[in-house]
Amino acid sequence: MSKPKGFEKPTGFRDYTPHVVSKLRTIERNVLECMERWGYRQIITPTIEYYDTVGVASSTSDRKLFKLLNSRGTTLVLRSDLTAPIARVVSSMLKDEQLPLRLSYHANVFRSIEEEAGREAEFFQTGVELVGDDSPEADAEVVALAIASLQAAGVSSFKIAMGHMGFLNGLLEEVIPGQTTEQEQLKEGLLGRDYVGYRQSIEALNLEPKLKEQLEAILRLRGGKEVCTHAVELSSSDEAARSIAHLCAVFEVLEAYGVSEHVLIDLTMIGDFSYYTGMTFEGYAAELGSPVCSGGRYDNLLQQFGRSLPATGFALKTNRIIDGVHGIVIEEKKPVLIQYSPKRRAEALTEAARLRSMGQNVVTLLLPEDRAGASAVSAGATTDQAEQVITYGSEEGGGR
Amino acid sequence: MSKPKGFEKPTGFRDYTPHVVSKLRTIERNVLECMERWGYRQIITPTIEYYDTVGVASSTSDRKLFKLLNSRGTTLVLRSDLTAPIARVVSSMLKDEQLPLRLSYHANVFRSIEEEAGREAEFFQTGVELVGDDSPEADAEVVALAIASLQAAGVSSFKIAMGHMGFLNGLLEEVIPGQTTEQEQLKEGLLGRDYVGYRQSIEALNLEPKLKEQLEAILRLRGGKEVCTHAVELSSSDEAARSIAHLCAVFEVLEAYGVSEHVLIDLTMIGDFSYYTGMTFEGYAAELGSPVCSGGRYDNLLQQFGRSLPATGFALKTNRIIDGVHGIVIEEKKPVLIQYSPKRRAEALTEAARLRSMGQNVVTLLLPEDRAGASAVSAGATTDQAEQVITYGSEEGGGR
Repeated sequence: MSKPKGFEKPTGFRDYTPHVVSKLRTIERNVLECMERWGYRQIITPTIEYYDTVGVASSTSDRKLFKLLNSRGTTLVLRSDLTAPIARVVSSMLKDEQLPLRLSYHANVFRSIEEEAGREAEFFQTGVELVGDDSPEADAEVVALAIASLQAAGVSSFKIAMGHMGFLNGLLEEVIPGQTTEQEQLKEGLLGRDYVGYRQSIEALNLEPKLKEQLEAILRLRGGKEVCTHAVELSSSDEAARSIAHLCAVFEVLEAYGVSEHVLIDLTMIGDFSYYTGMTFEGYAAELGSPVCSGGRYDNLLQQFGRSLPATGFALKTNRIIDGVHGIVIEEKKPVLIQYSPKRRAEALTEAARLRSMGQNVVTLLLPEDRAGASAVSAGATTDQAEQVITYGSEEGGGR
Repeated sequence: MSKPKGFEKPTGFRDYTPHVVSKLRTIERNVLECMERWGYRQIITPTIEYYDTVGVASSTSDRKLFKLLNSRGTTLVLRSDLTAPIARVVSSMLKDEQLPLRLSYHANVFRSIEEEAGREAEFFQTGVELVGDDSPEADAEVVALAIASLQAAGVSSFKIAMGHMGFLNGLLEEVIPGQTTEQEQLKEGLLGRDYVGYRQSIEALNLEPKLKEQLEAILRLRGGKEVCTHAVELSSSDEAARSIAHLCAVFEVLEAYGVSEHVLIDLTMIGDFSYYTGMTFEGYAAELGSPVCSGGRYDNLLQQFGRSLPATGFALKTNRIIDGVHGIVIEEKKPVLIQYSPKRRAEALTEAARLRSMGQNVVTLLLPEDRAGASAVSAGATTDQAEQVITYGSEEGGGR
């Protein structure tokens, strides 16, 4: 255990310099404004929650939660997502509000990374939750809003892959009923997009050819709306059929939104949150292999907080967008420099105030030759950073 | 140790409902934009820092720091202010940037409150640091910017009390040289504004009348610019004289800014941050007894991170402003409700997109009579929340 050096910060944590903050803030503002246009209102929840409530309800594995103890010895966690905290708020502070509830957020979340190289332990998510509506319209609304949000964030080229937990659950239960461990193993192969591993797991089951083919056929269920037809043919499970009917209805609403060109149906896709119960989706930008947004329906989470309500939502992975997508280009606005002699200080500062009130960025500087003693401030350095230099020198009227 | 209920959150932590978030976001945006006009660029630092570096350098007492351990057993802290983290960044990532550096932030900070009633364990600060300039101009700039920031935050009636650590240190060292414990005791009386306690501490020193009077006279050093003259007469210490000359120069620059009407000189004032070395100030709003902003000069902090540079800055206590000051009034913008039958969905959603692109907030709803099964969504409830209702009913052309 070596002592950290003075200027070090913990592994996985990050400083954002002004240029990156400008980009992050622009995305944050554009996306939150977009969500507001769709009727979503922002909430803010605490950074710290109880482990026994929000910590357990979150889908983050226990070893990835940041834990601490309060003075009473109760275990607390740093939030690992916003869905569980918002479920808590909906079940308490907002319990008398009319349904459906449309809520948005932009927040930092935490995952303990155990010193894995290159992973972030703290990062930003910008998202929504739509609570109290179980219809395909509601699922389509969050997918359409995810598309609008990605566009607002400057992501121009992307695809949304949309699946359904119920289809896979129904089909697996039909083919290998009750074999929970084997079902989980197959799902993990799909979750990790490890199709070789998935096929090996099928082989290991020693199924009769028809059943084996049923499981292998899942891998082909990726594409346009026609996937729904193929999926229906593949399974005679009620749950699978209901799920596909719902997904097909969601797709039709997305056609009405005029955004279905961005959407693929992908029944091999499993959302990586354990609380998903229905439709799930992920967004992929052209520049990046890992998703820039993810979402889905979670109809059983709120009852853990004492209020049984259906809900659906998504979050943008905002850090991946600022780092990996060449969407929003920030032009740094250089300030005007106003430098002055002590005599003309009031005149110079009045001009600075006038320019600022017009929206100009202005920095002011007492002329170095008028400064007492040695100063760290170099006039040359400061003028280099300025777009324009206005000088109120020692002679009246001079310098401008 | 009782198990928390499902909907509970830890003591001292807070949920912000949409109405309060609107107010907080408006203040945040207005103040950060104001700071940008003055040439300050935003940075973001991690929520978590090393205890041995930023934790120790912060002015928060050890028992008020939130601590946790990483997987290597190193102690981490949740940041308790932004001044120490920014000093770390200035000494590392920004070490090659030209001086002076003007940096701004809006961030949440943490103080362990040991279950004290009514105190917040997590709250927001919005502030700046001006690094690399030790002149009175720099101190005046941050005071003038604090005034502009309070105005941008909607605080209309306030006073800034401005003091100087060096004056008090010089005077105390002159009157009771080397008596560190006694000096600290007197300072604590002033810090807590406990003037009775301060006088008792003086009595306990058994000083000759002239020295006793010198210490008592400090309590009268509150008022306008004339306080500087009285202060100079009170002490023959070099440090006190230098400090008063600096403070007087700061006041003169504030006169040139045209904001000295907001400023009182108060030499009884001690900033509550242990790292302050020079001018300190606090802002008081008419509505509140406790300060809404505080700041000051800290010329010795950066050397703890390996870079010796003078610095000055301030932070707004943003939560006190949202809760205690009746400045910014947020009018909730009710959305337009567009409800539709399945047949006319595309038409309705196209109209929703058009209105949103014009800046209107719009929520959409499939007409309840067209919904399958029991739904939690009540049409009546939704129409109550809308400013206007547009219906695309089952008959073509009807409803609008």
